[in-house]
Amino acid sequence: MSPPITRADAARLDAEDPLAHCRARFSLPDGVIYLDGNSLGAMPKAVPARMSHAIEQEWAVGLIRSWNDADWYPAPQRVGGRIAKLIGAAADEVICADSTSINLFKVLIAALRMRPGRRRILGELGNFPTNAYVSSGVAELMNAEFVALDPDAVIDAIDDSVAIVSLVHVNYKTGRVYDMAEITRRAHAAGALVVWDLCHTAGAMPCDLNGCDADFAVGCGYKYLNGGPGSPAFVFVAKRHHAAIRQPLAGWHGHARPFEFVEGYEPAPGIDRMLVGTASQLGLISLEAALEAFDGVDMAVLRRKSLALTDLFIRLVDQELSGFGLATPRDGAQRGSQVSLTHADGYAIMQALIARGVIGDYRAPDILRFGFAALYVGFVDVWNAVETLKDVMASGAWQALEFRQRKAVT
Amino acid sequence: MSPPITRADAARLDAEDPLAHCRARFSLPDGVIYLDGNSLGAMPKAVPARMSHAIEQEWAVGLIRSWNDADWYPAPQRVGGRIAKLIGAAADEVICADSTSINLFKVLIAALRMRPGRRRILGELGNFPTNAYVSSGVAELMNAEFVALDPDAVIDAIDDSVAIVSLVHVNYKTGRVYDMAEITRRAHAAGALVVWDLCHTAGAMPCDLNGCDADFAVGCGYKYLNGGPGSPAFVFVAKRHHAAIRQPLAGWHGHARPFEFVEGYEPAPGIDRMLVGTASQLGLISLEAALEAFDGVDMAVLRRKSLALTDLFIRLVDQELSGFGLATPRDGAQRGSQVSLTHADGYAIMQALIARGVIGDYRAPDILRFGFAALYVGFVDVWNAVETLKDVMASGAWQALEFRQRKAVT
Repeated sequence: MSPPITRADAARLDAEDPLAHCRARFSLPDGVIYLDGNSLGAMPKAVPARMSHAIEQEWAVGLIRSWNDADWYPAPQRVGGRIAKLIGAAADEVICADSTSINLFKVLIAALRMRPGRRRILGELGNFPTNAYVSSGVAELMNAEFVALDPDAVIDAIDDSVAIVSLVHVNYKTGRVYDMAEITRRAHAAGALVVWDLCHTAGAMPCDLNGCDADFAVGCGYKYLNGGPGSPAFVFVAKRHHAAIRQPLAGWHGHARPFEFVEGYEPAPGIDRMLVGTASQLGLISLEAALEAFDGVDMAVLRRKSLALTDLFIRLVDQELSGFGLATPRDGAQRGSQVSLTHADGYAIMQALIARGVIGDYRAPDILRFGFAALYVGFVDVWNAVETLKDVMASGAWQALEFRQRKAVT
Repeated sequence: MSPPITRADAARLDAEDPLAHCRARFSLPDGVIYLDGNSLGAMPKAVPARMSHAIEQEWAVGLIRSWNDADWYPAPQRVGGRIAKLIGAAADEVICADSTSINLFKVLIAALRMRPGRRRILGELGNFPTNAYVSSGVAELMNAEFVALDPDAVIDAIDDSVAIVSLVHVNYKTGRVYDMAEITRRAHAAGALVVWDLCHTAGAMPCDLNGCDADFAVGCGYKYLNGGPGSPAFVFVAKRHHAAIRQPLAGWHGHARPFEFVEGYEPAPGIDRMLVGTASQLGLISLEAALEAFDGVDMAVLRRKSLALTDLFIRLVDQELSGFGLATPRDGAQRGSQVSLTHADGYAIMQALIARGVIGDYRAPDILRFGFAALYVGFVDVWNAVETLKDVMASGAWQALEFRQRKAVT
């Protein structure tokens, strides 16, 4: 048996942390340990000045001229190119636009059109609901069929009736990670295409879309990419599909020559055809500034720190607490950058924890979710979070309080 | 014959202008006369402080808690309710989300589903191209037909084969206005539904959607509503259609209980079902602050000023210039809040004009577009703009310069 983990152990891990300097890139409130970056990332310090410049100079003074002079036009491509580096894609395979749900809609229809003889979209149960909602909506529109299976059953259900396998790479509730390479390989062997949702992947852990020969991916900008509330989403299309794909939202920014204002739609070459309407510039500018927090960060180093953080959290829960279940795999290879505990009184416990400055979130029916954004969460934070949780449980404070049901975002 | 109009006449109109005080609500650069608010509205002074608060307090300090504590959740409804007042709708009939192109896609499919026996979408030639692009995309997806006619031919082509009449209320190029009441009446008489695009209407002139018994409308936030570059768009659905409509982008924010994370999609009651993914909060907050510029403004008074501005501009062009055509109706009742001149060398002339601080824009092949946002443009501005244009023409400066082709946004 190894000796108990101490606070000094956590402090030593912080002292040895090669990413410790990145925390200074974020603004975090005093008295808060923020373990909800998997829902809304913390604010990078580069954002306020960049946004003030965008609003008070580029917009107020530059006015319409800033579409050219401040390079607003190429922002969707430019920010997409920055995200591409984090997910194993080429710069011209990723573009920023719209929301994850809308980008999922675009790629599902585009992919169905590439497999005209097949009508099945294979998805999963128990993952983020918008994926099932959007897939069902697409199936209805396209006379296709959406089949959602238990995550473990998906891989063996891939056969030549399947047009698309559509999965969330890291489960929003449990943090469990699919084997992207293996599932993509199996899908391709059956002639199917794969759509990966990277909402809980991008910025949280490395991902090698092109190394896995992935077809399509989508993801959001406001979790581990720290773009701010409602930040624009991104979409990846492998270069080999660029010429073939036709997405259904034929807006003018996806046109080959949007400023010639011709009557007929002709999709732009390359990834630009995934655009629809005018880009949300304020959101893009915030996200672009936020992505500077990844400057010089090796994603393999980030992954090692993320695993060490979640590993420490799990071991401390084992050591310090009882009565909690663990919904997240102990095997690091199967784990994203979050740990989910289960407890029948999870909602009340999480509220009591938040009241003491440790911010995670709750997902029905019994999940306490803790996200570990390796750029700004440290090992002593993990220690303190578990101590606070222990204190909450010992005090019974959570049982005494009445908590108003409140909403929360993934 | 009336005596020539003088600068003193323009100054007198400014002195008598009941909306003159509204100009102080906007930040406008020195030395610029801004006549491109029909493309990107000027920056309302309320925006920077509101955005700094949203970024540095609500996001950085409030973090995930701000979805509740800073009322981020109800922002799409709240901002929609503010816009509703400007377009003759009830507060719960308008919601802010996504882009105009995407909202158009939603309502076209929703409307086609309400007319299952009919497959024709009737649109127009020579208006903003995204409407034709999106309509064609919808027609392909829904096995329908998109027919675009000359604007004057639309009304007589409405028969019982038509599912939807989809028109841009104020033409982006000419500023010509459709008779919303009459076209809506004719469409309903034939059993068709009507979609109005209010991009060049909302905030520019009054509009009475419910008075006209309109079905659906869409519009953008970045023109006369001054929400900032890429500001979220809005969508109107008449209350009588709320229960029946099913839009195809079934994202989680349009769900009846988005935070219960259930597997099956159940559309929210009311206008909320038009939502898809997470709202672009930074864009919504900017737009909400911007809409304060309309506080206390009677849209009938704004319309009178707008018509007086465009009327003065047309009369001064007649008086001071030659060689220009007029693409905009002289009849104020048929005119939005812009004036479009034509000239074979329009592109070069507009560039020379912009170089002298009068900012309008150019639309191929020969249109010089001038937008008059009545909240911040005055009558002496109109005088000075025409004097500058006269000066440009007299100097021949526009002929001497080589102008690099640049993009521009509507």
